[in-house]
Amino acid sequence: MTRPVITLTTDFAEDFFTGVMRGVIAGINPDARVVDLVHAIDPGDLRAGAFALLAGCRYFPKGSIHVAVVDPGVGSSRKILCAQTADYVFLAPDNGILSWALAREKDVTIHSVEERKFFLASVSSTFHGRDIFAPVAAHLSLGVKVADLGPEIAPDRIVRLEFPEPEPVEGGGLHGEILYVDRFGNCITNITVEHVEGFDAARVRVEIGPVHLQGLKRSYADGHPGTALALIGSAGFLEVATSGGNVAERFALHVGDPVVLTTASS
Amino acid sequence: MTRPVITLTTDFAEDFFTGVMRGVIAGINPDARVVDLVHAIDPGDLRAGAFALLAGCRYFPKGSIHVAVVDPGVGSSRKILCAQTADYVFLAPDNGILSWALAREKDVTIHSVEERKFFLASVSSTFHGRDIFAPVAAHLSLGVKVADLGPEIAPDRIVRLEFPEPEPVEGGGLHGEILYVDRFGNCITNITVEHVEGFDAARVRVEIGPVHLQGLKRSYADGHPGTALALIGSAGFLEVATSGGNVAERFALHVGDPVVLTTASS
Amino acid sequence: MTRPVITLTTDFAEDFFTGVMRGVIAGINPDARVVDLVHAIDPGDLRAGAFALLAGCRYFPKGSIHVAVVDPGVGSSRKILCAQTADYVFLAPDNGILSWALAREKDVTIHSVEERKFFLASVSSTFHGRDIFAPVAAHLSLGVKVADLGPEIAPDRIVRLEFPEPEPVEGGGLHGEILYVDRFGNCITNITVEHVEGFDAARVRVEIGPVHLQGLKRSYADGHPGTALALIGSAGFLEVATSGGNVAERFALHVGDPVVLTTASS
Repeated sequence: MTRPVITLTTDFAEDFFTGVMRGVIAGINPDARVVDLVHAIDPGDLRAGAFALLAGCRYFPKGSIHVAVVDPGVGSSRKILCAQTADYVFLAPDNGILSWALAREKDVTIHSVEERKFFLASVSSTFHGRDIFAPVAAHLSLGVKVADLGPEIAPDRIVRLEFPEPEPVEGGGLHGEILYVDRFGNCITNITVEHVEGFDAARVRVEIGPVHLQGLKRSYADGHPGTALALIGSAGFLEVATSGGNVAERFALHVGDPVVLTTASS
Repeated sequence: MTRPVITLTTDFAEDFFTGVMRGVIAGINPDARVVDLVHAIDPGDLRAGAFALLAGCRYFPKGSIHVAVVDPGVGSSRKILCAQTADYVFLAPDNGILSWALAREKDVTIHSVEERKFFLASVSSTFHGRDIFAPVAAHLSLGVKVADLGPEIAPDRIVRLEFPEPEPVEGGGLHGEILYVDRFGNCITNITVEHVEGFDAARVRVEIGPVHLQGLKRSYADGHPGTALALIGSAGFLEVATSGGNVAERFALHVGDPVVLTTASS
Repeated sequence: MTRPVITLTTDFAEDFFTGVMRGVIAGINPDARVVDLVHAIDPGDLRAGAFALLAGCRYFPKGSIHVAVVDPGVGSSRKILCAQTADYVFLAPDNGILSWALAREKDVTIHSVEERKFFLASVSSTFHGRDIFAPVAAHLSLGVKVADLGPEIAPDRIVRLEFPEPEPVEGGGLHGEILYVDRFGNCITNITVEHVEGFDAARVRVEIGPVHLQGLKRSYADGHPGTALALIGSAGFLEVATSGGNVAERFALHVGDPVVLTTASS
């Protein structure tokens, strides 16, 4: 395991906190490769962090260490978790941010991070990203085992963030919601490609706010410029977008807004 | 060619898409050095991307691989191009984003990127940055040749983005436009240092929106605080700026706005 | 000294200037590890840059080269300084941005950066980050000594940015101000943990704008959601924050606003 990747998912935006975490890591393992997964998470937005991890983590090489610091409970009695899966290590506060990514992983073993010899000598009560997450990640990248960090925790004892599963609609169809609005304003829903496979793509109807669409497109460019379209996005979820515009802004769509998938009557 | 540089120019802003591209690259070539050129391009803004490449690419070491993913046509029939020049490799959609940078390069050979063995196994129709651009760039950084990616394309068969050349003004002078507004609000025009060299610097007149200036300054600090000034910027273009302020905001100047360069009558 | 860290602190936000600096560094020292400390400094805001360096620099490994390019005087007669301390090298314009970080360092030796052989061959008068700071930092990372860059300057001859020391209040207590508002809206003041140690934590009173607080909390989660709280933040300064909200936005607090620390009469 040479030069392992450490990914960072935080709500630090562009402040200097991420740089400081990188400094701490560089001091412990100069060979670690630190990659920013995303820092543009709204403060404390666990769902957005969980989605970025879900959509992004599996594109990193086996052995990568995924660190998530969206941590409104920093300094409280909330635990810090380190999860070993078949392919990755995850390090995050025990607040549910790992739930969606871990649900897809196999052979998950979780430990509570308590061994202070892997922390900075002085631990603040307001910036564990610097004082605990960064140094622990660096030590993991040097070969420290997850089991060395603290006692094992049963998976049913950690805080869970429920994934909002879409619900069946009377008469057929699904009732879902917007899960994530991306940088382009594309609205990613909780309805998956597997859900949609049961429908006739040409006759699918999608209702989301004032937008009523029939049929799924293949790519953004398949739509008429400026009008909304629905497609299966790159993370495998039904997505409402527009060709050359921001559908969320235009139609005032937000995370949590309902989406209804039905089939046009023939 | 050890540890080649891969640069990324995208309109992904701060979303997790860039991180995912880095993950894919790290999985294929752990030794690649990935450098963000710029991600703060407005969605689909090919001119801004083209300008960043034009102004930035030549400051990277010989052998660097410049990847540009401003790609509103992703998933459509638009081609993907890989261009080999004397110093660099460029990888981008065939939408003109490379035009301005390639116009300065010598010995350009262009291939259409079609060889799927260098793509991810599963290719989405909405995120080729992850599925094609990142893995192809990583393979290039491992030594794959541009010619291995697909058939050669004649340079006159690719989509071109016209560089807006300034036009002569009756009675002498030039009529140009704003090409790029930078982070400080400085308005970079399409009038180059070579154009300006034909004029007497002290007697040059620059008109841009409500701003009328005479004479070129050497640096931002040469102006009176808060007032506009004109100078030759670091990319070699005539630029209207202000000392300690944002000239674009103050005078409501935007990309595409006209600028007129004349000489004061003596 | 293998693979030294070069940190970048700039006001370039997300524009392509930082990428270009990285390109220049990579061309001179392919093994340098470049870490962004922060780029989200308001244009020309020397205090914010000084604070980020003060709070962040000491978390980087010994031997790191800290480069700060908040440089409204670029191209003027302002000097460029390179400071060698016991642990670090600092490179920045002579405008005070290093003052707060250097005040904490020992054995500071400062040289004026004048030796053009370490610059790019062509030096613009508007982008020294690219033409001077990046190449000089790269050469330093290759082993060039600070003394090789130009003549020594006495520490009392450089431009100083005064740290706003809090002042005693009649009847006991301190009158300070907001030093930095972070990404979460937390208001970091110039009153240090050492100042506060003289007070009874439970009886401390903090007044900042319309916010009147009694007692210090330990962590953000210790407060009632949505209400303001005071604590000692991770950089060792008194901070006013809120649990799950943005205290600066809510109460219209800004850098420079006064804060008063007193003790409740018993």
